[in-house]
Amino acid sequence: MPRRVDVYDTTLRDGSQREGLSLTVDDKLRVAEQLDHLGVHYIEGGWPGANPKDDEFFQRAPMELSLGTATLVAFGSTRRARGRADDDEILRRLLKAETSTVCIVAKAWDYHVIEALRTDLDEAVRMVSDSVEFLHSEGRTVFLDAEHFFDGYRRNPEFSLRVLRAAEDAGAEALVLCDTNGGSLPHEAERIVKEVVPRFESAIGVHFHDDGGCAVANTLAGVRMGATQVQGCINGYGERTGNANLCTIVPDLTLKMGVETIPVDRLERLMPVAHHVAELVNIVPDPQQPYVGASAFAHKAGLHTSALARARDAYEHVNPDLVGNGTRFVVSELSGRSTLQFKAQELGLEVDGAALGGVLERLKELEHRGYHFEAADGSLELLMRGAGGWEQGFFRLESFRVITEQREDGRFVTEATIKVHVGDERIVATAEGNGPVNALDAAVRQAIGPSHPELANLHLTDYKVRVLDTAKGTGAVTRVLIDSTDGERSWSTIGVSENIIEASWQALADSIVYGLLHQGEGEGGNGRTGRSGDGRL
Amino acid sequence: MPRRVDVYDTTLRDGSQREGLSLTVDDKLRVAEQLDHLGVHYIEGGWPGANPKDDEFFQRAPMELSLGTATLVAFGSTRRARGRADDDEILRRLLKAETSTVCIVAKAWDYHVIEALRTDLDEAVRMVSDSVEFLHSEGRTVFLDAEHFFDGYRRNPEFSLRVLRAAEDAGAEALVLCDTNGGSLPHEAERIVKEVVPRFESAIGVHFHDDGGCAVANTLAGVRMGATQVQGCINGYGERTGNANLCTIVPDLTLKMGVETIPVDRLERLMPVAHHVAELVNIVPDPQQPYVGASAFAHKAGLHTSALARARDAYEHVNPDLVGNGTRFVVSELSGRSTLQFKAQELGLEVDGAALGGVLERLKELEHRGYHFEAADGSLELLMRGAGGWEQGFFRLESFRVITEQREDGRFVTEATIKVHVGDERIVATAEGNGPVNALDAAVRQAIGPSHPELANLHLTDYKVRVLDTAKGTGAVTRVLIDSTDGERSWSTIGVSENIIEASWQALADSIVYGLLHQGEGEGGNGRTGRSGDGRL
Repeated sequence: MPRRVDVYDTTLRDGSQREGLSLTVDDKLRVAEQLDHLGVHYIEGGWPGANPKDDEFFQRAPMELSLGTATLVAFGSTRRARGRADDDEILRRLLKAETSTVCIVAKAWDYHVIEALRTDLDEAVRMVSDSVEFLHSEGRTVFLDAEHFFDGYRRNPEFSLRVLRAAEDAGAEALVLCDTNGGSLPHEAERIVKEVVPRFESAIGVHFHDDGGCAVANTLAGVRMGATQVQGCINGYGERTGNANLCTIVPDLTLKMGVETIPVDRLERLMPVAHHVAELVNIVPDPQQPYVGASAFAHKAGLHTSALARARDAYEHVNPDLVGNGTRFVVSELSGRSTLQFKAQELGLEVDGAALGGVLERLKELEHRGYHFEAADGSLELLMRGAGGWEQGFFRLESFRVITEQREDGRFVTEATIKVHVGDERIVATAEGNGPVNALDAAVRQAIGPSHPELANLHLTDYKVRVLDTAKGTGAVTRVLIDSTDGERSWSTIGVSENIIEASWQALADSIVYGLLHQGEGEGGNGRTGRSGDGRL
Repeated sequence: MPRRVDVYDTTLRDGSQREGLSLTVDDKLRVAEQLDHLGVHYIEGGWPGANPKDDEFFQRAPMELSLGTATLVAFGSTRRARGRADDDEILRRLLKAETSTVCIVAKAWDYHVIEALRTDLDEAVRMVSDSVEFLHSEGRTVFLDAEHFFDGYRRNPEFSLRVLRAAEDAGAEALVLCDTNGGSLPHEAERIVKEVVPRFESAIGVHFHDDGGCAVANTLAGVRMGATQVQGCINGYGERTGNANLCTIVPDLTLKMGVETIPVDRLERLMPVAHHVAELVNIVPDPQQPYVGASAFAHKAGLHTSALARARDAYEHVNPDLVGNGTRFVVSELSGRSTLQFKAQELGLEVDGAALGGVLERLKELEHRGYHFEAADGSLELLMRGAGGWEQGFFRLESFRVITEQREDGRFVTEATIKVHVGDERIVATAEGNGPVNALDAAVRQAIGPSHPELANLHLTDYKVRVLDTAKGTGAVTRVLIDSTDGERSWSTIGVSENIIEASWQALADSIVYGLLHQGEGEGGNGRTGRSGDGRL
């Protein structure tokens, strides 16, 4: 078994094949930042030439990303059948991405060569040699994704091995065995990787899909048999049932098998990164996900809870802190109180025992109604301050109105009017916007901006909406989260209501109050620590 | 490897420990019916005495369930430490459930005996012998769940084996090795089961949790090493990360390893049962779930679709029909012409080559602006119809206006006014709602309902909002997805705009048009196939 393996993330390419997942170029850049922050070795950014988004990504990446640990990889395929490598469109585009490392896919199952590629086996092998040689001669580090390798090897190992041999001879640095249809079982994966590894000098990688529910186990078996590159996706995203889940593989290898993966001091970033990426792709994180799921260390059975307090290692397979998660006791007031006490300390607030009890009651009531303060530190702080008797004195809302119209000419117009009191003054302001929240934001700035010029530094950076209790359709409860920044610190606020505009207003008002409250504190302030660069914690 | 294994389902006991899952007695009875319909051998119904629901379940089960293939099992634990079996409350209650078979849990990790049970190892072994002997003497078939077996065996195999030996000697028919903390990896599970099996006459069962992401692989390894009972849950429900997923294990064993599990002609009930149970427990089915997930055989990449038509076995690890699922083609900007052609056929639309090219261009352009048609079959169909020159004649929008107000008393009011033409008539309607979409929906129904009474059957079931290109905050583009149903079929529609109200209107209008277009077609219609019972395909 190797002492260490390279972690190759393909969330931005294979992962984005997940049904319902669609990434803008901005999303892709932000996911790449998270992956680098986590410390993966390779980030496969996409397939240049396959769609305009991926071209734009590779164009912007060198300017907008400053990667610390990760190498960016462009993905492509071998040259066309019966063509030349040096004037092949796909290979040209791949070079144009200007990454140091490229990964190209080649068919390693004879059946596919004949049925899908419609060429002969010798030509399929030449496609590999030519392409690898060409890319190598252009100065690229070349990885070969041997597509359908496991299915192919089971039927015609000689051909599958020829493909690998051709790639190695032409200069490929890693040969990646792909289980493209995802149906391999661990004992087969183990046998095949065991047979392949000793035949090659190049690094052997493994790339599994989860169609048989064994992608993680197959990957571990591959590493035990000598593979030194593991490919997969954050949160197991991917086509059909998903790719091998790096959020499981990395801690399994590191914590259970003693194999070095990402820098060990970054393992605790695993859960924050997994959840941040889930937010970027707007897919609700699976609470049951190993290690990083919200329920992964949540203990429900009354049976265990008291015992768990005495001997934690008797009930948890690893220490959840190691992966940035934590033990949770489901339906337990005790844990609620201590968590809250901890939170108050974190925020630098002094909340006495009685007030803490009040906060807890209010928090439970609000969370029951759909609030989720874990994702809204800004609102949580205001709630805790409120429990201590604090009231914000920046402005007082009298009323507001938002009108959205589609006119006869098809034009959409949104206009918000707000009536607020600042000190002794009553102000009425009206503003237009792209939508209700944008218009409200503009109106409130117009109203209170003159007395709070600091507001000019405060910007909304994200606005998220989730509909809860979806059985009721548009009558359901809406949860709005707003992220804001003043350039130095970032904070999140929340609103919940049957009415999306009301929910948005609550989150917007909290955002402004929080921003004004902490104005000028900067990084060293006694409030929440500033968060920049790494994005959301 | 055994020729066949018994499938032991513990959804109603261990599965119900999943966070967020709560079953009424009626739910439990209906889940049990589904499990029997699927053909599992054992249904663990609950822990009599542990809560009143489980007592009621065992009381009602003999009267209300007529099980065809399955044996109902009552779960319990061994007698208390330093007590007697024949007057132990837990064992008495277990007998009172009057099942032919009982399963009792015993600690098989010395650490737990000392830390949690707070007794000595000899007493722990006696608790097993006494309890099994007593239940056996009362005519029960007894299975022993050896809790924490794998963790225990790794540290003190002698004690763990003593527990099993005591159970076998006292008449236990099956010894179930449990990985209670769920952290075992397949190579360890394999080694341990291999060492245990030859030492006992009794059947060996395996019971894994998914904390290391390997519950399925561990189970398969256990069977390869001679285990003949597999325990798990439908859809992998269970505490923390869940129990081993029977919906994956059963087809893996049957289709890939040639081991007999449930009656082979019932395998096609797997997806319907998985989805039916998901509905009963009210948890949205995981689309990525192997075999039975809605995406498990959904092909997205344009690359593969045309080839798939020629050689399906080249791209699918098993025939999806075998587990009651089916192949689907997902349409997105990544897809090529052939995917679209397939989609048209699926929808029963005739779209000629030229029109198809037009659809593809339009689709790419819209997806570039943030549309995402793979999640919105309804809007896709309307788009494709539109390319063929079709225009909807149900209504024509002139204009609308939505007003949301927070009044001085704090009350929120939303009101929508819509002006539409139906035939030659111009209609102006105003309605209130919980929020802008709800009010708009009400107003449009009021306006066109009288001429389209079918509209009364059409309901919105979900409303989802995603903000794209989030760097711009509330000025960003908003994508709205609406799911609707007419009770027989379901469809999804999409809208994208800088203005959330405009985006919502687009999705809402598409939803209504689609619903009216397919009104009365029911299951046999020529549009999209009806979807009921199993939920969305």
